[in-house]
This record gives sequence, structure tokens and C-alpha cells, in this order.
Amino acid sequence: MSVTTVRAYAAPAPKAPLEPTDVPRRPLGPNDVLIEIRYSGICHSDIHQVRDEWGRGTYPMVPGHEIVGVITEIGAEVTRHAVGDLAGVGCFVDSCRECEACLAGLDQYCRNGVATYNSTGRDGEPTYGGYSTHIVVDADHALRVPAGLDLAAAAPLLCAGITLYSPLRHWNAGPGKKVAIVGLGGLGHVGVKLARAMGAEVTVLSQTDRKKDDAARLGADHFRATADGTVFKDLRGTFDLILNTVSAPVDVNAYLGLLKINGTLVALGLPPEPLPVNMGALVGGRKSLAGSMIGGIAETQEMLDFCAEHGVVSDIELIAADYINEAYERVMASDVRYRFVIDTATITA
Amino acid sequence: MSVTTVRAYAAPAPKAPLEPTDVPRRPLGPNDVLIEIRYSGICHSDIHQVRDEWGRGTYPMVPGHEIVGVITEIGAEVTRHAVGDLAGVGCFVDSCRECEACLAGLDQYCRNGVATYNSTGRDGEPTYGGYSTHIVVDADHALRVPAGLDLAAAAPLLCAGITLYSPLRHWNAGPGKKVAIVGLGGLGHVGVKLARAMGAEVTVLSQTDRKKDDAARLGADHFRATADGTVFKDLRGTFDLILNTVSAPVDVNAYLGLLKINGTLVALGLPPEPLPVNMGALVGGRKSLAGSMIGGIAETQEMLDFCAEHGVVSDIELIAADYINEAYERVMASDVRYRFVIDTATITA
Repeated sequence: MSVTTVRAYAAPAPKAPLEPTDVPRRPLGPNDVLIEIRYSGICHSDIHQVRDEWGRGTYPMVPGHEIVGVITEIGAEVTRHAVGDLAGVGCFVDSCRECEACLAGLDQYCRNGVATYNSTGRDGEPTYGGYSTHIVVDADHALRVPAGLDLAAAAPLLCAGITLYSPLRHWNAGPGKKVAIVGLGGLGHVGVKLARAMGAEVTVLSQTDRKKDDAARLGADHFRATADGTVFKDLRGTFDLILNTVSAPVDVNAYLGLLKINGTLVALGLPPEPLPVNMGALVGGRKSLAGSMIGGIAETQEMLDFCAEHGVVSDIELIAADYINEAYERVMASDVRYRFVIDTATITA
Repeated sequence: MSVTTVRAYAAPAPKAPLEPTDVPRRPLGPNDVLIEIRYSGICHSDIHQVRDEWGRGTYPMVPGHEIVGVITEIGAEVTRHAVGDLAGVGCFVDSCRECEACLAGLDQYCRNGVATYNSTGRDGEPTYGGYSTHIVVDADHALRVPAGLDLAAAAPLLCAGITLYSPLRHWNAGPGKKVAIVGLGGLGHVGVKLARAMGAEVTVLSQTDRKKDDAARLGADHFRATADGTVFKDLRGTFDLILNTVSAPVDVNAYLGLLKINGTLVALGLPPEPLPVNMGALVGGRKSLAGSMIGGIAETQEMLDFCAEHGVVSDIELIAADYINEAYERVMASDVRYRFVIDTATITA
């Protein structure tokens, strides 16, 4: 099979609106699979990269790393997947399999990994993401999507889902544990569902009361608005684990005060500036401030299986491809409950 | 037994030099022990408190929470100790035994604990520390000092020793683990000995090469000066655990860069200002910035037993009580290798 051209939505240059275009997909290698993409989620980080806010963007850029579809062709050596299988692709499409991170099953931190888009593949060619009709990926980096999940609503699990699942597992969310989710957006709302499914007692901490009813509907046991600051006195020393999904700067020391002794506050977002941290807020109770980024391939598979078992998917708004630019504006305005997903059948000439 | 008056060195007022004086010790209760103090270490925090740099100091103040001596009297219900036993007292002399921290064996974080000095006991009276000839303490908060340890050199284990031992144990220092100790002072030098005794590979990170030979003598496998910054490139991604003993502000993000994936940087000192922390330095490798403060009574006993088994004590300079004020100046100038210990027999009229 030779290089194929597929339809996609791409940003032709930094800050330019996305538009329909054609991009190449590599020939199917012996351990590759060809996936006909059905749905592709819109992650806030797509917008950062399209607008080159993180620098080093390469164009044309086809975003999208929350991909689900159907396998339509497999390479000669592929045994994990078969034609007709449902498959997912997340934030990375290759890893070195040799470094300390890869050997520890933490391949999401592989320094020689290949991101799903805006990166360079092993073949030296640019990678293009999921806002597209098809993708060719290494079979070991394609996930099996269990039957029974709503396919469109499952797409965001590939990034938002694993971003919350991995720290919840690593820091032992479960029965008897009190978990707070800071921010009820694309990440936070999946975090509430996952933490609840794991058996933890879940509190949502959100700026205002605007999403209070949603929090209850998503399964949160408690809800507190943070804007007036009273929560930081009332719930002092309450939580075993706090996951902060907010990328804007927050008062880290105030949140550390909400932790029990031995508790952990985990940053999942990346504020543009360093945040001031009082060492005393850590020392006074053996507390930790940690960070976490998506999850490895094995853990992502585990997450998908867990979500199928517990009926966890994202709350989504399904859109046509020609709505992408407007959707971006609404994401920036926090006007989505809770994830836009592109119906890739609408990516046409 | 009624209230006894004992000889001590006290600061009569904030910032005043210490001078000989008399202070009261409470009558021996049924679960109390009377300890004839032999040696008392000088901790940097003594100086902070004497000078009221942390606020809320009460005077006269008798510092000292690195205490070893001999039990000369026991209360009617005491079973853990006998007259003639060697005993130690660390940073706290009582705890509530009921709170979540106490029940978890983390009684050092008890919110109703009583500090060894500059605090208020259960009887409502001020507590006075180890720069003194005798102390009356609750038997459950007196440690057994194993035979075979040099008594004077063992005194600093009660604060400096447990401050390093607890995080080394909690974050699994041992064979196959690479541990860095930042700062080679009263805390750091014991940390090197302990980490080495636990079987870890130990690197000392110190500002200049001044203490390089000492580091090797203390058992460090490696030494790097940090002032020129090259270490932060050369040793990127090296350590499982870094213990920062420096109370002055350091570049936290640079040290986070020295951690492996999953690694932890632990703050043991308290810089006066918040430190700027890049969330990206944590998120990019599931790293943690944590804090730790001394250890509980059970763990302090475990530490003393470990030190006896492995021959670990502090490197000390033994002084007479009338040298305390000069010793304080030398501590402030980092001119001690590595801990001053007062021979309390010199506390006379």
C-alpha cells in the first residue's frame, strides 16, 4: 500500500481558522492498522496548539487525539486487532519501548514518544490527528474499544478519561477515600464519574454555584463554590486526594489546606506561570503537590475496560466538522457541557 | 513530689542572650518519668524561636529538643521505663492520642500536641526544654536510647536524625534507589549516614566544593557543587528521592528536573517566602513536591534502634553551657561540623 491522501480539517497557519484539506497517511506497515475514524473529540490543548500558544507548532496542523473508529485494514504481523474491530487512539502513537519510562509501563512519559499530531513520526514525516477520515497507527498504540460504550461519547475517554483515571488509580481513590475534583469541565466531569465508579466520596469544587445541579447529576456527593473562600475554612483537612483540572492559576496553598495529613494535590493542567507554594503547607502534614499527564497504553486499555464495565462516558455535544471553529470559541468561553465531539462523517470535500 | 526548681539556660526576652536561671518542673505524675539530662543538642530552630522569628514566643524560654539523659525516678504506673535507663526526648512531649494523626501513628502532626519547649503543657503551664539539668515528661513520650550509642553524639538524633529518617523510610530509600541530600549541615550530614545505612546510593548536593571531603568521609557515593548550575544539566532525571535540608529559598524547578519519573523532592526546611513552582515540572513525569516534619514516637524509637544497629550518630562539637550564645552565632554562620551539643553538667549556678 502506498501513501494515501485522506480528508481532514487543518489549521493552515498559526491562529488561522481550520478548513477542509487533504493530508497524507503513510503506507500500512507490517505492525500498523488503518482506522476509519468515526468520532474525534475536541480537547482544550488542540486550541493551544492550533494557535501556537505552546510554540513549535508545525502547519498545516490537523488536531485531535480523542479518536474512535473501526479498523479496516491490518498489517501482516498484527495480532492484537482484526478488521472490523472498534479501536481508539489517544495522545501518542509511538514510544521507544526501551527507556526507563517505557519499561515501567509509563510510556506516556517516554522522551522519544510520538504525539498523535503536531509531532514527527519514526518515518520522519509529520503526524496528523483525528479531525480526519482515516489514520494509520502502530498496532500497539491502538486501543481496543469495548462493545457497549456509546462510541461518540467514548472518544473523550482517550484523553480526558485517562487524564483523570490514572491519578485516581495511582493515588488510590476508592471506598473510604475523600476525593475533590477542582473544576467541572471536560476533564472534571469525567473525573467525577470515574471517582464515583471507583467508590470514592466525591466533592466538586467549582468557582460558582452555576454547575451545582450538574455535579449532582454526574454523581458528586458534595458541591462547594470556591469564589467566596469560605470552603477553605469549612473543609480544612478534609480530602485524601484533590485533582486540580483548572489550567488557570489557583491558590495552591489554600487547596493544600484542604488536604488531610498525607494527602496529595495533583495538578493536571498547565498554568502559564509558576505558582507560589509555601513549603510550610507541605511540611506541616507530610502533604504532596504532584503532577500527572494522561496514562500509558496498558493503563488506557484498563481505563476503557473499566468505563465499559461501569458505564462511564463523557457528556458530549456532537458537532459537524464545519462547526469546529465556532466550537473552539465556545470552549474558550467555557460554554460546553462537557466536550465537543466531531462526527467525522461530516468531513467531506 | 511537689514542683521542683531546676537549673537551666534561658532567654529572658526575645533576642536577649541566654543566661543561667531556675525553672520549675512539674510534680511527677503516675505516668511521668524524671530524666537527669546529660546532653542537649542545639537545633537551628532553637535560634529562630529564641529570637522570636516565628512569633508567639513565650519567655523566659529554655530551648532544646534533642535531649538524652538517665531516668532517675518513675511514676507509679510507668512500665516502659525503669530507673537507671537511658532515655531521650525529642520535639514533642505530649499528643492527644485520639485524632486521626495520632491514630495513624503520625502523632508528630497531632494538632493538640505539646512541644518540648515554648508550648503549654496539659497542666496549663509553660514547657521548658533541654538546656537544663532535669526534665519531667510523660513516659510514652520518652524514648529508649539503646546501649552502645555515644550519648552526646546521639542527642541530635532526636530531631535531626528523625527529620531525615522518616522521609527516607516513607519514600523507600534503600538498595537500588538514588537519593540526593541537598545541603550538608546538621540535618544533611545525618541524612547521608542514614541513607547510606539503608543501602541507597547517596549524592550530596552542596553550594560549593568546601565540604566535598566531608561528604565522602560521611559515606556519600557522589558529591556535586550546585553554584555553577552545571549539575542541573548533567544529572537531569537521576534521582528517585531528593531531600532538601536547606531553609533558604532554592530553585525548586531545577531540583525537580533532577528527579526520575515518579520521583519525589521533599522539603524539610521552611523558607520564609513561598517558592515559585512550575506545574509542568511536576506534570511532565508524575513528580511530587512533598514536605515532612520529624516523625512520630514509634518511628523515632525505630530510628534510634536503627542507628544503634548501624552505628549512626551525629558529628558533634561538645560545648559547655556558657558557650551557647557564641555557638548560636557560629550556627548562623554555618560554622559547625555538624551539631553543637551542650554538656548539661556545665549548667551550674
